[in-house]
This record gives sequence, C-alpha cells and structure tokens, in this order.
Amino acid sequence: MRKKVVIIGAVALGPKVACRLRRLDPEADITLIDRDNLISYGGCGIPYYVGGDVNDLEDLYKTSSHAIRDQEFFKNCKGIKVLTRAEARDIDRRAHTIKIEHLDSGEKEELPYDKLVIATGASPVIPPIPGADLPHVFTVADLHDAESIKKLMVQGKVSRAVVIGAGAIGLEISEALTDLWGIETTLIEMEDQVLPTLLGKCIARITAKELEQKGVNLLLSERVLQITEDLGNGQCIVKTSHNSIAVDIVVLAAGVRPNTKLARSAGISVGMSGGIAVDHRMRTSDPDIYAGGDCVELRNLISGENTLMALGSLANRQGRLIATNINGGQSHFRGTVGTFCIKVFDLGVSKAGLTYRQAKETGFDPVYGVVSQADHAHFYPSSEIIYVSLLADRKSRKILGIEAAGKNGDAVKARVDAVAVLLHHGADVDEICGLEIGYAPPFASAMDVVNNAGNALDNILAGYNRTIDAADFLFKFAQKQIKVLDLRGTKEAAPFIEKYGKQWLNIPQDQLRRKILDVPRDEHLYLLCDTGPRSYEAQVYLSSKGIMDTHNIQGGFAMIVATDPAFI
Amino acid sequence: MRKKVVIIGAVALGPKVACRLRRLDPEADITLIDRDNLISYGGCGIPYYVGGDVNDLEDLYKTSSHAIRDQEFFKNCKGIKVLTRAEARDIDRRAHTIKIEHLDSGEKEELPYDKLVIATGASPVIPPIPGADLPHVFTVADLHDAESIKKLMVQGKVSRAVVIGAGAIGLEISEALTDLWGIETTLIEMEDQVLPTLLGKCIARITAKELEQKGVNLLLSERVLQITEDLGNGQCIVKTSHNSIAVDIVVLAAGVRPNTKLARSAGISVGMSGGIAVDHRMRTSDPDIYAGGDCVELRNLISGENTLMALGSLANRQGRLIATNINGGQSHFRGTVGTFCIKVFDLGVSKAGLTYRQAKETGFDPVYGVVSQADHAHFYPSSEIIYVSLLADRKSRKILGIEAAGKNGDAVKARVDAVAVLLHHGADVDEICGLEIGYAPPFASAMDVVNNAGNALDNILAGYNRTIDAADFLFKFAQKQIKVLDLRGTKEAAPFIEKYGKQWLNIPQDQLRRKILDVPRDEHLYLLCDTGPRSYEAQVYLSSKGIMDTHNIQGGFAMIVATDPAFI
Repeated sequence: MRKKVVIIGAVALGPKVACRLRRLDPEADITLIDRDNLISYGGCGIPYYVGGDVNDLEDLYKTSSHAIRDQEFFKNCKGIKVLTRAEARDIDRRAHTIKIEHLDSGEKEELPYDKLVIATGASPVIPPIPGADLPHVFTVADLHDAESIKKLMVQGKVSRAVVIGAGAIGLEISEALTDLWGIETTLIEMEDQVLPTLLGKCIARITAKELEQKGVNLLLSERVLQITEDLGNGQCIVKTSHNSIAVDIVVLAAGVRPNTKLARSAGISVGMSGGIAVDHRMRTSDPDIYAGGDCVELRNLISGENTLMALGSLANRQGRLIATNINGGQSHFRGTVGTFCIKVFDLGVSKAGLTYRQAKETGFDPVYGVVSQADHAHFYPSSEIIYVSLLADRKSRKILGIEAAGKNGDAVKARVDAVAVLLHHGADVDEICGLEIGYAPPFASAMDVVNNAGNALDNILAGYNRTIDAADFLFKFAQKQIKVLDLRGTKEAAPFIEKYGKQWLNIPQDQLRRKILDVPRDEHLYLLCDTGPRSYEAQVYLSSKGIMDTHNIQGGFAMIVATDPAFI
Repeated sequence: MRKKVVIIGAVALGPKVACRLRRLDPEADITLIDRDNLISYGGCGIPYYVGGDVNDLEDLYKTSSHAIRDQEFFKNCKGIKVLTRAEARDIDRRAHTIKIEHLDSGEKEELPYDKLVIATGASPVIPPIPGADLPHVFTVADLHDAESIKKLMVQGKVSRAVVIGAGAIGLEISEALTDLWGIETTLIEMEDQVLPTLLGKCIARITAKELEQKGVNLLLSERVLQITEDLGNGQCIVKTSHNSIAVDIVVLAAGVRPNTKLARSAGISVGMSGGIAVDHRMRTSDPDIYAGGDCVELRNLISGENTLMALGSLANRQGRLIATNINGGQSHFRGTVGTFCIKVFDLGVSKAGLTYRQAKETGFDPVYGVVSQADHAHFYPSSEIIYVSLLADRKSRKILGIEAAGKNGDAVKARVDAVAVLLHHGADVDEICGLEIGYAPPFASAMDVVNNAGNALDNILAGYNRTIDAADFLFKFAQKQIKVLDLRGTKEAAPFIEKYGKQWLNIPQDQLRRKILDVPRDEHLYLLCDTGPRSYEAQVYLSSKGIMDTHNIQGGFAMIVATDPAFI
C-alpha cells in the first residue's frame, strides 16, 4: 500500500522531506501544504533581495537551474502534490487525519496520513511596543514583507529607517537599507552589544565598529518605548529611552518564535524553550509525527540545554534525515553546537559554541584567548587580519566556543568551521594548538591564526600569559589607571607618546634585554605590540626579571584599532 | 643548573623550538646551528619570490613586524645564540656532545648538550638523469637557489624552461615562471596525472586543465631521459620519452628526501619511509634527542603507515611541542591525515586523507562521490563552483579522504579543513551529511557542497545513485559505446544534439514523467544535468520504471567542462 505522508509547511524543511522521500520511495503519496502562495524559497535571502544583491524576488524560489519552484514544478519534476493557501487547522492523532482550510475558498478538507511532518517554522516576535502595528512598521519574515519594503524603497519613499533588534536579521537588514539605498538607518538594541546571543564582547565590538563605519547609527543599551504616526515630515516617530527619531519605516527584528499552536492543540510535547520537542530521529512525542526546522527545539551540545536555532541549513539537514527515517532508515540528529556566520558589510563574522556569558551561566569556568593575525602567510601580498576569540573551560580545557571576524569572510569561516565540527567531539585546547588544517602561503600561515588562538589560550591557562582584552584595556586606559609599555618601534610609538605623555612608554622589543633597568617596577604595565606575540614574549621576559604586574593586550594594536578606530 | 639545548637546523622547526623554549625557560642555554648563512625563513614562500608576488628575498626572513631574523635578532629579541655557517659533523650520544665545523674558517668545535634537537630538514631528490648536474639545472630547496633562478630571469636570460616533476613545488614553480615572467614553461611528470601522491584523478584533471589553460605545456606519463648542453639557441636540451625541448633553465622538482645522515651515523633509528623515527613526544630512539620537521617520518592516521610529509605547518606545530616536552611538559603529536592545499594560478586545490589509489593499496574498499556546487547560495551573486570528491570505505563508511578545487581558494579550503580535522576522529559518511558548518547566503548554501558530497556518497553506498565520473564518461563517450540522456532544457542540449546526433538524447527533467515512454530501454544511458542533482533524481525515477542501465554523471556538465574545457 502506498504510504501517505502529509507535510505541513513548504518553505525549507518541508520540501526537503518531500523531495528526498520521493527519491527513496517512488510510490509514496506525498502532500505538501502551506498557507502561503509562495513556497520553497530561500528565506535567508530576503535581506539580499531588500538590499539589491538579489534583483528579482523569483530568484529566491528558483532552483540553481532557474526553474521556479511552484506547484507545477513539484508536480512535474518531483511527483509531489502541493496545496498552497491551505492552512492546517487540526490534527486528529487517533484517526491519523488533519483538517485543513483552503484560505481562498474557505473550503475545508480532511487529509489522512500514515506519517505527518510538522514544518510550521517560526514567526517574528512582535515586541510589546505601542505602535508596533502601525502601517509602516514591518517584519521580514516572508517574501511578502520583503516585497512591501522594497516597493516603498523603489518608490523613493524611504530616506530614514529604524531597525529594532541587533540580531542577525537586524544586522543584515541594516546593511541592506544603508548599503545600496543610502537610507539613514538607526539600529536599536536593548542589550549592550550587537548579536548578544551569538558573540562575546571582543568580536561584537569589531562588528559594531564595522556597522558604524559604514554609516549605521547604532544605539546600544537603548529601549524602544513607543512608535507613533508622524504628522510632520516622516511616517513614524520612534521614541526610545534616550532619543526620538522620525523615520519612514520601522523594521522589527526582535527574533522569532516557533509556530507550535497546531502541535500544542494536538497534545504534542513542546519543550521549555518553546519549540516542539523531538528525539534524535526528529520524531515528536507522537511517533507517527515528525517535526523539524524553526519550530523545534534542539539540544545544544556544549551547554546540554535545549535551545532554539532558526537556520535554513539545520532545516535542510533535518529534512533529509526525516525522509530517511520515514522510509524506515535510522538517521540521527544529536544536536547543534550553534555554528553561525554572517556578512556585515565588508566583514565576515563567524562563531560556534557558547559565548563567555552563556558559558558562565551554564556553570563552566570560561577562559578566553584573543589573537589577531593575517589570514595568509605574512609575506604573501594582500592578506587581511582575522581576529579570533577562543573560549575554553579552565579545568577540563574543553573548547566551549570560537568567534572570529575579518575582511576575508571565507577565510574567517574556514577557521571557525574547522573548530565547530570538532565541538561535536569535545575537542580540547591542545587539539586546537595542533589542528591539522591546510597550509600554503596564499591561504594560511605555517602557524595559522587558529592554531595560535589555541597556543595563546594554552599559555593563558598555564599562567604564562596574563592578558587583558582590547575593550577592557581601552576602558582602563581612558581612566588613566594604567600605563602602556609599547614594544613596537620608536616610529610606531612616537605619535602615542606625543598624545599620552607619561602614560605611554616605549622600549622596542629588541632593546628590552639591554634596557631592562629602564622598565618601571612600580606601575601597572600594559604591554603592547602589533598583534600580541612580542608583547607576550616581553611579558615572559619581564616575569623572569621579577616584573610581574604586567598585562599583555590580547591581539595587540590591530585589535585595539578594530575595537575603537578612533583611538589612533 | 641551566639546561643546555642544542638545535641542529635553523629554518622552521629549529627556531620554533628555540623561541618557545626560551619563553618557557628564561635560563636555558639554547644554541641554534645551521650550515647556511640565511636562517629562519619561509621556505614555502620561495615560489612566490621567484614569481614576483614576494618582491624582496628579505621578506622571507622578516617577521610580520619587519624585523630581519638573523643572528642579531635572535640574540637581542630572543636571547638565543645562533651559529650560522656551522655544520654538525658528529653526535657523541654517550658524552652528550656534538662536533661542529665552522664552514668559513674550517675550525672545529665541540658543543655539550643536555637535550639535542635534530631539525636537519630535507634535500631535493636529484633524479638519476644524465646532465642533472649541468649549470642551468636548478633545484628550489633554499633561498640561494631562489636567488640564482630569479637573477637569470631578471637579466632576461630565460625565455623557455622545463620543470621536472608535477608535485606541489613543480606546480608552484611552473606558475611562477609562466604567470609573471611569461616564460614558455613545460612541466614534465612521469605519472599520468599532476600531484600524483596527493590527488585522485577527478580533482587532478581539473588542476591539470587550469595549468594548461594558463599556458603551461603539461606533459604527463613522460620520462626525462637526458639533459644536454645546447650549442644552438638554448642553454640545455631536455630529451624525454617523446620529445626534445630546448630551454634556458631546467628546474628539478622531483620531491625531497629527509636529511638523516647525521642521525644514522649516531645510531639513531631511521624508519622504513626514510625519515627519522620519533615517538608521540617527538623523541628519537635516544630519549635525549628530539627530531621533527622534514627529516622525520610521521604516522598517517588513515592508512596507519609511516610516511614523509614535508610541510612548514607541521614543522611549526611539532617545534612548539618539542619545546614543551624539553621543558618537562607532556605534549603529543599523534600523526597526520595529510591535509594539504595549493594555489594553482586562479584555482585553489585542497585535500586531506588518502587518494583512491592509496586507499586501495592500503586494503580499503574505497568508494567516492563527486559533486559540483556553488560556494555560496545559488541566488547570491558572484558565486564560484567548488568541485568536491569524497572518499569512504564501503563497509565501515569511514571517510578516507576529501579533495576539492575551485576558483575561491579560501572557500575550497574551508570545506576540506572541516573534514580534515574530523579525520583525526574517524568520521563516517553520516557525519559529513550532517556537518554543522556555518551558513549564510554570502558564504555557503543551506545544504552546502560538503554536506552534499556526503549525501551523494550516502546515496551511492545505499545503491540509489549509480555513477560514473566525468573523466571515465569522456573516455567512454569518445569511444561511442554509450548515449547521453541530457535532462537539461532544450536550449542547453541543442548544440550537443547538433554535434553528436543520436548519441545525445534530451528530455528536460520536468517532462520526464510524461515522456517516460520515449526513454530507450535497450541503451547504456548516461544521465546529465548541470551539476548532478537532477540527473540523480531522474535516475531514481527511471529505476522505479524498470530502466536500470543508467549512470549518473557525477558533478554534471560543470564537472565535464572543468575536466575537459574542449568538450563544449
């Protein structure tokens, strides 16, 4: 008998399940339903459509060979039935049927299933701000939202915008508005950093500086209190804890929430995180019902906690696995380590694992090392600096997370991905020191930045390297509590001596041994070089001479400049 | 008492041991000796100096902060004594001394040691070809070789060259000669492919085509018989099994051989591969003598065999570890999975693990899957195709190797490195299907090329996907034994139908279900689409209709064009 499989939701996971299952089982009766008329699209491409990198909305629901993925396509190419503008209203688990409503005609229908897949995705969180429902306040959840925003821009009706929320979507949309359209964009975040659930402060600061340098007006630690209609020269006025901003559009990017209403009302378990609970085979509490994608919760393999992670890549991998399992296979999804990457203007930013804050909250004793180093051999032309922050647990030396940023996004991602996949195996610091990634001068250093991140952390854990990160250094230096011992050449140091006087000492590293008596013994010394290795070496030497009150500024001058370009 | 540490060899591993040890032990008496006057240089940068990417030879022995790494540098910055132009002649293990000779003065000296480090590197293999010692025949082992070749080129004395050996150095030097200097370069390799110890035939063919398209005259399966002085218009005549080529210079790039004479004569164990045998702590058979870098053999963690792997990155990582262990630490180097990358003109090529041939020889039952896919989301502009070949053992499903090539070398390397680091953990095919690497449209696909390489291999192992690779397809097609069923659009297929007549059928994939009766049932059908997924889908459908004699051309049209650009 032909197996009847019904899949609710036809954006990412749903179509993947359907197509893979069709290939495994040519006889199965597969029905995909979605309440929208547009299906099987690359939702992650929306910011690039808004920004103009993707010209045509259709590109987001075309295959790589330019076929439009609509009902006809699924019928002719895949042998899969698709019902669009059809919403699932109820699951009768005992009868193995679902009730659907055809949204255009109002007709109701009952579909029987042997296996059901819930792929209802997530919806944008609408923060409880008065005025969040005004006509020029948008979300960017689907292609219709994308079209509405773009239409206004094409009509020249948008010259100022506010984006609320500095998560991934908020950053991508801010770039989209600013970069091509030249819209005066203010990005508002209530936390004290961008990407607060994704990055620690070092890489977040670099990311924030990139946004600011590219013209985004970034307001951190700021709450939106109210949005009102503007009867003057804008469409809305956004009132925050510190500002009042007249703009033409507001984009809400306050995160997403899993769509679990259907599952809940059918008595299917929903986890503490708010996502549908699934086992390793992606089955819900009802073994005939699978779920995956943005509507489920996933085990974070570092923290051990269940968590939400809305990512098209996870949805696709889970979709393939669900099809395998529906067909009688045994594929397992054990969880996620939270690998993530994003382009922020000219910066690539990548991470995996926990942030420092998350690691603390989980009960680890986290320690981090930060390094700055060229992505290629330093003698090879046209290299870019990569900034890496590596986090480990003090006692077990297990890696808890890695974050990186740099102008060559593919090279940044290469380093983070290599560590990310190892987090599934519980890698420790020593494994990162010896990480066997490819080496050739155009693509890496003989001792690559990611190895050196491991080395730095190893030296910190061993007590050889006593550090401060650039952000903390800048804060302390501004308070004049500390002095810098600049180990760079006299030429590099000169402008800072001129600017900061006695707060800035300079002994080039190659003169340190013979000028050891010039080093003050009663000061808090913060050691600086270009990127960190020479100041570390100097610290070790000073320690051997009994000068112990020193801190090595991690990532050196390069990290300071990336953290605060105004410092120079 | 100050520990006396003598290190023989001051290029890569030697200085790394010395510098790290100095940081760990400020008191140690550390002496580095080298027979050359130039030390601590980036030997891997030589081809880029010859080619002109690196302008100044000094750049190869400068630090990233532009300090020249000479004897003074090591003395002032590091507190390390360096003896250059000093050759170690003999190790007296019982007395814990070495005899050295100062090459300029002829003076002899004896140095006592507590711990000795052998970092004697490797020397180029000089193939037993008559004439290999002629004045215009070069190797590229050190900076002096590099200077000699470059000097001739700068003087305009080189318009034609032969490079013997298509290993990594041979390819890099061929590019260097051709690219900037416009030298008519012939690259001769006795095996039937480039990089024969590093790549299987699919990625090797793509690499070879890049060389040819950029103007290198590539001669495979060809032996050099003799080099003679040319009394006519060139400097040498290279006589091969099929050709006679008059050139101005010949570069020997026939691989390197570990320098083990000193170790052997001291009775230290040398392994079957020809490298010095070391344990996990990088100690030789004498526990007071460490060795590392190009002169040692390493365990290949996939094959289990000991092997030679001359790479600056391995030398650096081993150097750090030797210093840790000399200082009483416990750092282990367990072996290598052979991660490698190279830039070949505009192509990045990367690999880890075994080739198909090596896997066979080791006793595995290797199966490979090949995919072509854009490095970025297909809707994102300016993406480049990455070609990935993934190799696994049929029974255990363990990954044995991965190879990849593409125009975006950093993106190619990202995919290979992520799999390479997992080879240390014995990853299987399923892990690659679910590999959790970062996803954002500018940097990856939701189902990334590396995941899809796993998926393809999974489908092959399950018997769903019956494949042929592009090289084998081209061979069979040329012999007219087979027919192509082109699943692309009629427009894409038209020029091939015109060219190949009845050997080229076309049914666009979206019409296959209704035209199933048009598919011939008595032919060997080779299914083709742009990159492979549609032809795979068609194959599954045809199988369900009883049409079983089909092969899916792996990587599709993209792979065919990369393998033989002349096919179109």
